[in-house]
Amino acid sequence: MGGEKEVCSMPEAKLTHIRPDGSAIMVDVSGKPIQRRTAVAVGEITLSADTLNAILNGQLPKGDVLAVARIAGIQAAKRTSELIPLCHPLPITKVTVDFTPQPHGISIQTTVRTDAKTGVEMEALTAVSVAALTIYDMCKAIDHAMVIGPIRLQEKTKEMID
Amino acid sequence: MGGEKEVCSMPEAKLTHIRPDGSAIMVDVSGKPIQRRTAVAVGEITLSADTLNAILNGQLPKGDVLAVARIAGIQAAKRTSELIPLCHPLPITKVTVDFTPQPHGISIQTTVRTDAKTGVEMEALTAVSVAALTIYDMCKAIDHAMVIGPIRLQEKTKEMID
Amino acid sequence: MGGEKEVCSMPEAKLTHIRPDGSAIMVDVSGKPIQRRTAVAVGEITLSADTLNAILNGQLPKGDVLAVARIAGIQAAKRTSELIPLCHPLPITKVTVDFTPQPHGISIQTTVRTDAKTGVEMEALTAVSVAALTIYDMCKAIDHAMVIGPIRLQEKTKEMID
Amino acid sequence: MGGEKEVCSMPEAKLTHIRPDGSAIMVDVSGKPIQRRTAVAVGEITLSADTLNAILNGQLPKGDVLAVARIAGIQAAKRTSELIPLCHPLPITKVTVDFTPQPHGISIQTTVRTDAKTGVEMEALTAVSVAALTIYDMCKAIDHAMVIGPIRLQEKTKEMID
Amino acid sequence: MGGEKEVCSMPEAKLTHIRPDGSAIMVDVSGKPIQRRTAVAVGEITLSADTLNAILNGQLPKGDVLAVARIAGIQAAKRTSELIPLCHPLPITKVTVDFTPQPHGISIQTTVRTDAKTGVEMEALTAVSVAALTIYDMCKAIDHAMVIGPIRLQEKTKEMID
Amino acid sequence: MGGEKEVCSMPEAKLTHIRPDGSAIMVDVSGKPIQRRTAVAVGEITLSADTLNAILNGQLPKGDVLAVARIAGIQAAKRTSELIPLCHPLPITKVTVDFTPQPHGISIQTTVRTDAKTGVEMEALTAVSVAALTIYDMCKAIDHAMVIGPIRLQEKTKEMID
Repeated sequence: MGGEKEVCSMPEAKLTHIRPDGSAIMVDVSGKPIQRRTAVAVGEITLSADTLNAILNGQLPKGDVLAVARIAGIQAAKRTSELIPLCHPLPITKVTVDFTPQPHGISIQTTVRTDAKTGVEMEALTAVSVAALTIYDMCKAIDHAMVIGPIRLQEKTKEMID
Repeated sequence: MGGEKEVCSMPEAKLTHIRPDGSAIMVDVSGKPIQRRTAVAVGEITLSADTLNAILNGQLPKGDVLAVARIAGIQAAKRTSELIPLCHPLPITKVTVDFTPQPHGISIQTTVRTDAKTGVEMEALTAVSVAALTIYDMCKAIDHAMVIGPIRLQEKTKEMID
Repeated sequence: MGGEKEVCSMPEAKLTHIRPDGSAIMVDVSGKPIQRRTAVAVGEITLSADTLNAILNGQLPKGDVLAVARIAGIQAAKRTSELIPLCHPLPITKVTVDFTPQPHGISIQTTVRTDAKTGVEMEALTAVSVAALTIYDMCKAIDHAMVIGPIRLQEKTKEMID
Repeated sequence: MGGEKEVCSMPEAKLTHIRPDGSAIMVDVSGKPIQRRTAVAVGEITLSADTLNAILNGQLPKGDVLAVARIAGIQAAKRTSELIPLCHPLPITKVTVDFTPQPHGISIQTTVRTDAKTGVEMEALTAVSVAALTIYDMCKAIDHAMVIGPIRLQEKTKEMID
Repeated sequence: MGGEKEVCSMPEAKLTHIRPDGSAIMVDVSGKPIQRRTAVAVGEITLSADTLNAILNGQLPKGDVLAVARIAGIQAAKRTSELIPLCHPLPITKVTVDFTPQPHGISIQTTVRTDAKTGVEMEALTAVSVAALTIYDMCKAIDHAMVIGPIRLQEKTKEMID
Repeated sequence: MGGEKEVCSMPEAKLTHIRPDGSAIMVDVSGKPIQRRTAVAVGEITLSADTLNAILNGQLPKGDVLAVARIAGIQAAKRTSELIPLCHPLPITKVTVDFTPQPHGISIQTTVRTDAKTGVEMEALTAVSVAALTIYDMCKAIDHAMVIGPIRLQEKTKEMID
């Protein structure tokens, strides 16, 4: 992508959503430049072997659980600023949600992009979370031991816009 | 609570949201009885020691990050059927979101209750997820290594309504 | 209506949304009976004489500003539990929004009804507020001195359901 | 702020949301320049002395009612274009909600900012309204005489963006 | 289903959402009995032969456009009362969305059920509409002559609940 | 308008929302230029003569059904990206909804505009659909044979922004 990877060395080492008296605010990002910002988040959901088989190649037409979860993740990315109280509304330009079978479950990777004054890591993390919750919902009749997580940010980049 | 704990022995061992041809449906729960249904979900967010201190007793007025996360979790429980495509809308009668500091982060426990034809485990899990995401959002300026999860259902009960 | 008017003598003189440690909850209403509950709220918006004339009988087709405000109020009543964090979602069965011209503005009266375990005063007050905001929005190009309020609950009743 | 205060001399003295035949539209703002626009709104909620004490320094941990109301106000600002039918959706860059105790209640001040083609006074007024409604909701068990208002715009400015 | 088919003989031959003065209301359904109510709606989207092939058996994995459209329709059914101003919020208990290829497009059939005081024909019609719009959105890059409709109610029944 | 009419010759003859493996994505529009984009959509709802009379000049104050439907259409345009899973959220700058009586019903025309990286035909089509559904809802007590459609895109243009 050629973008600059944001160095995770805490350039602004303070809780920016909190004012001196502890009250919450939606911080002012007016002065920040509009840049192309991309975030990639990953997560997992642990499934039983039977559930995994049922999703991947059982009697079920392949991929339907994942098709629903993918849509749920994409839609959740768009609603992040409604769900997370202090998030800014952002004009998202791209969302992808990908699934990879693992020995004991499914891993989820999301990519979100925007041209905006602040980044989209919360959107990427929210998409992973809701995709995982949707898999959980669709499999809970046959699997009572599913676990969601770990969910983490994998990469966050920004680049100048021509 | 005196409620009957639902035995997790897969009383309906099939993916009930999937039809024979693999297409998704919102399953018919019309015939199920209205019962008092409660679900408890738990989850964790891993934080650095500095972040944990900042939240709990740093220069910050105690509890504000958690106050915002609590509200976000309660509100998310109410929006579960919008986020999870095949969830039924339910008249939620109670939501609590509790936080307990841990050595390496914060644990989150949610309880959701309804008088309805189907249970609220997705609501409880969604509340945990969004509370964790909100903590992440409010601390991401000072902590770049946070991890969300594991998130799981702890208990699910139902009882007859007089 | 024949309903019992709820005596405003603070039957539960505590802040029921707050727990001993000060954290917010959505209180448990499971144990309360389903009753027919009605709330009436009233409010005003102060307008200049020119604005009032423009709305009521100026060059404008009569009533259009109020038609939009009425719809906005009805829709807001339905979204109250999304806007007010600790409100319970309720199956609203009726909403009306009425306007009465006053010497210096317009008064707004809303009635909301439900068959539920808790009352709808917040729904009625939210409908008044959003109807007033909508009038404000539609007139702000010609009136820069509008004031919203006072807004108050006028009546709250409940009755047994046969 | 160095911004130009918008003179309230009705530069466009017509109800711009209404067409000649009286039908409502969402007016075309395409041709307006993107500017940094800020609005400040203020409002009050009248409370009994007991309620005010309970909020501010009673048995309650200080500030929790206000913490919830602050979050509700911030979130409502982001949803203004869903609530007010003819409002444009705007990329809000800042929201603050502040409370000041008064002899007979609490005053609320909100500031909202955007870089957009139209202003954010409705967002600021909506944030005040919903913050007040949330205080009402959280105190209604102990106070049956609360009144919301007056709510008004205090200041509206715009400035060129470099 | 054994339900009673509602005879379409206009049992209440008036525009029930309109009051004598023409103002809109959300009509009072409090007094109506809770019954099991089901509605079936149908509609079509006209597609070019190439588009239809691409959806059904082209290079595309079968069914993905329809999988997304199905989810969109189900979710829209749940949001009907937000979209249609005077609709009552209803506790939907079932939604299905089915597609059948036609010579010149795809036909859509939806079934929605609730146990409530009023029916779900608007939910069924909304699900058809949004499913069709979603097909349109996903195919608009290759087909510029799609047409949505006709959309109509096919059946509406209600039955007593034991 | 002087804008360039987009030639409907399939400049990108592929289903751009679908990846090689058939999974859905919200396609990346980051690289597209911000342009002034306008879309016009049209549709019809078939009504009985009695219903049409009741709406247009019966005992009803003229225009109220249409006033509600107009507002519903405008609001739906703003919510398009929530309803259609793969639509991008766009900063809409204008929405109009117009009705014209026809011999056997009412025709609906909507115009939507934005300055954005992608067009607003889905917003215009969604506004037509929801306006038609709202007319249906308001007339369904007196007319059981209404039909919605055909709904189609009439025009789509884009022009450079100075």
